[in-house]
Amino acid sequence: MIQRPRGTRDFGPVEMAKRRKVESAMREACAVFGFGEVVTPTFEHAELFTLRSGQNVVDEMYVFRDKGDREMALRPEITASVVRFYVNEMSNFPKPLKLYYVGNCFRYENPQSGRYREFFQLGAELIGTKNPESDAEVIALAVNCIRSAGLENFVVRVGHIGILKAMVNKEIGDEKLAGEVLHMIDKEDWDAMGEMFDARALPRQLFDKIAAIADMKGELELLNNLDQSEATGYLQELFGVLKLYGIEDCLIDMGIVRGLDYYTGMVFEIDAPRLGAEKQIMGGGSYTLSELFGGEPVFSTGFAIGIDRVVLALEAEREIAVPAQLDAYVVPAKDDMRKYAFGIVARLRSQGLRADVDLMRRSMSKNLKYASSVNARYAVIVGKEEMAKRMVTLRDMKSGEQRQVMADDIASEIRKS
Amino acid sequence: MIQRPRGTRDFGPVEMAKRRKVESAMREACAVFGFGEVVTPTFEHAELFTLRSGQNVVDEMYVFRDKGDREMALRPEITASVVRFYVNEMSNFPKPLKLYYVGNCFRYENPQSGRYREFFQLGAELIGTKNPESDAEVIALAVNCIRSAGLENFVVRVGHIGILKAMVNKEIGDEKLAGEVLHMIDKEDWDAMGEMFDARALPRQLFDKIAAIADMKGELELLNNLDQSEATGYLQELFGVLKLYGIEDCLIDMGIVRGLDYYTGMVFEIDAPRLGAEKQIMGGGSYTLSELFGGEPVFSTGFAIGIDRVVLALEAEREIAVPAQLDAYVVPAKDDMRKYAFGIVARLRSQGLRADVDLMRRSMSKNLKYASSVNARYAVIVGKEEMAKRMVTLRDMKSGEQRQVMADDIASEIRKS
Repeated sequence: MIQRPRGTRDFGPVEMAKRRKVESAMREACAVFGFGEVVTPTFEHAELFTLRSGQNVVDEMYVFRDKGDREMALRPEITASVVRFYVNEMSNFPKPLKLYYVGNCFRYENPQSGRYREFFQLGAELIGTKNPESDAEVIALAVNCIRSAGLENFVVRVGHIGILKAMVNKEIGDEKLAGEVLHMIDKEDWDAMGEMFDARALPRQLFDKIAAIADMKGELELLNNLDQSEATGYLQELFGVLKLYGIEDCLIDMGIVRGLDYYTGMVFEIDAPRLGAEKQIMGGGSYTLSELFGGEPVFSTGFAIGIDRVVLALEAEREIAVPAQLDAYVVPAKDDMRKYAFGIVARLRSQGLRADVDLMRRSMSKNLKYASSVNARYAVIVGKEEMAKRMVTLRDMKSGEQRQVMADDIASEIRKS
Repeated sequence: MIQRPRGTRDFGPVEMAKRRKVESAMREACAVFGFGEVVTPTFEHAELFTLRSGQNVVDEMYVFRDKGDREMALRPEITASVVRFYVNEMSNFPKPLKLYYVGNCFRYENPQSGRYREFFQLGAELIGTKNPESDAEVIALAVNCIRSAGLENFVVRVGHIGILKAMVNKEIGDEKLAGEVLHMIDKEDWDAMGEMFDARALPRQLFDKIAAIADMKGELELLNNLDQSEATGYLQELFGVLKLYGIEDCLIDMGIVRGLDYYTGMVFEIDAPRLGAEKQIMGGGSYTLSELFGGEPVFSTGFAIGIDRVVLALEAEREIAVPAQLDAYVVPAKDDMRKYAFGIVARLRSQGLRADVDLMRRSMSKNLKYASSVNARYAVIVGKEEMAKRMVTLRDMKSGEQRQVMADDIASEIRKS
């Protein structure tokens, strides 16, 4: 047997019905927020991703050379592609530009729970402005996506990278050295950072201050403990807009420091605590990226939601309810009724019901067994007498209850129940 | 500037709205026919595709080696993956198994009109039976997908590979030689085939007979000219079931001979004549494939629709109508009304309207210009007086007509029009 590649998945009909339900709900949230969908290629010039994320991303990418010997990569994320698309073709569009995407991404790492080599993301980018209300708009969309998906237990944490950046730059003075410190912060390896501070004879007091800020997690009021910086005012205003949007339970988390090179101000994450170690289901923030790809600089804010993890989180709460794959399975009692049965199934389908008919010339009992095994809601049995009266027997497959109905009324009878 | 890879595409919001409309209509057709969606990985072990299509497919595939030095390929088609999935995990499911997929495929060839290096297919496989009604069911689904998408001008051609196969095997007798002849037929290079017949001293009469059959295109009655074979009776019965399904205009085309190794009986294609050289929008037929992948042999019938070509064909007929991206754009007349405006947009969104609000603190006139440039249906203007009365000014962006409505009634007023 040929197996699927390691770390990838096959999804069957029941699983897909659940995933599409979740995806559709999130898409609808994007649409009501006025975001338009974009789709970009599954592979790109590898350079696009190394420019954004640095050379180290190569180890985690599926890279290959095309016939023109150009280095291509399966996309590890989609933001870079959307910004490339923006720079190439949309930079003259009216601002702000509100774009969302749903797509598969690829990461060449060891498969483990909640991490796959091919995974699915829904993300959004708001391009062309940066202020508390545009950042709040993006956070509100992320929250509405998760809410629409049906998840109840999740935590939204909002931070601001500008606070740390400004503080480090001010305290150290030397731009190059400040850059190195920020790089250490980005790695979040506090032990190594302590050693680096000692080696470079940087003030221990600064280290403690950085650690204290990175440790600030909780209610908005925590910000009162910080020096009144531009950034704290910014976050307070942002939380004010979120309230107007009906989002009242966000937390402050100054510990979101990943991607310091990349993010410029507000950063935010959403966790589903039930998922344990892999609990982060969304990450985002404000950034500038277009100039790296040869465009004019432009402020953007965006996020990406891990669809796989949202599905896992939902299933940890309760089963995702999806309708039966079949509303009606039409069973001719004998061969003579076969043609009549095809006419009935065609009619039910034209009326929008999910309907099927015996395609294997089976006996009545085998057909009823099949209808039961595929969880059809109703069997529509066409017998000789019924056919003469233009009627059918409608059998509720759950209760076993049967009644005769006019052939013309099957759809409305099924819809009633 | 970094360009997207050659032969790939970026799709913007308007284009995507059209494509999703077409895709959704086809998905819904699959659902009412009782087909369930499956999703398989974007890349597979390359062997999967060479087993199905032969080594020559390698030249057209994106192939790469993973870190375990296994040869992987971006999928050039999805049927092989669905059958692999079936063999690995679904072979014990009740039959028939009705599966459909929507996904991207990759073909490493020179880009040209209607042919892309990344392209999109919707396909279906009915696994577990083979008789006129199950083949008719699959043809009916393909036709309903195309009809649901809105295409009006298309031609369905149905053939049967068994007729040629049986004839060649019978006339030639020698199995190996018959295989070589069939291989030539598969290539459809009649000149080369003529030479081969001369070189091997095969009867010219047989060549003429093959050419005559491959040339049979037209109404069902054409079959009366053929020797009464099992296959002609099969096709007549199949066309009878199609009629019961309301599909009356299929043609016979015995010239569909591609994939002789692969298809076992009925084959069919749909063309959109307006597309010229690249007019084929769908291809399918009945096949057996599972035993190649290590499973038990099982009859299957399936098809794949080229979504890109369906979209091109639709656009050749008329513009694909999609709703405006925004129903309402909320404009605060002054800074004081900003908060009130956020509340209004949040309300409109919760009522399911596609709504947006000024996020750039622009003047009224700039906001109205923006609303117009993004084709918003209505501007919702929030002034001081209106705010006091809990009203807004609703401006129809097309007619320019304005009227005052209660803030609570905006959604219903917009829905009315």
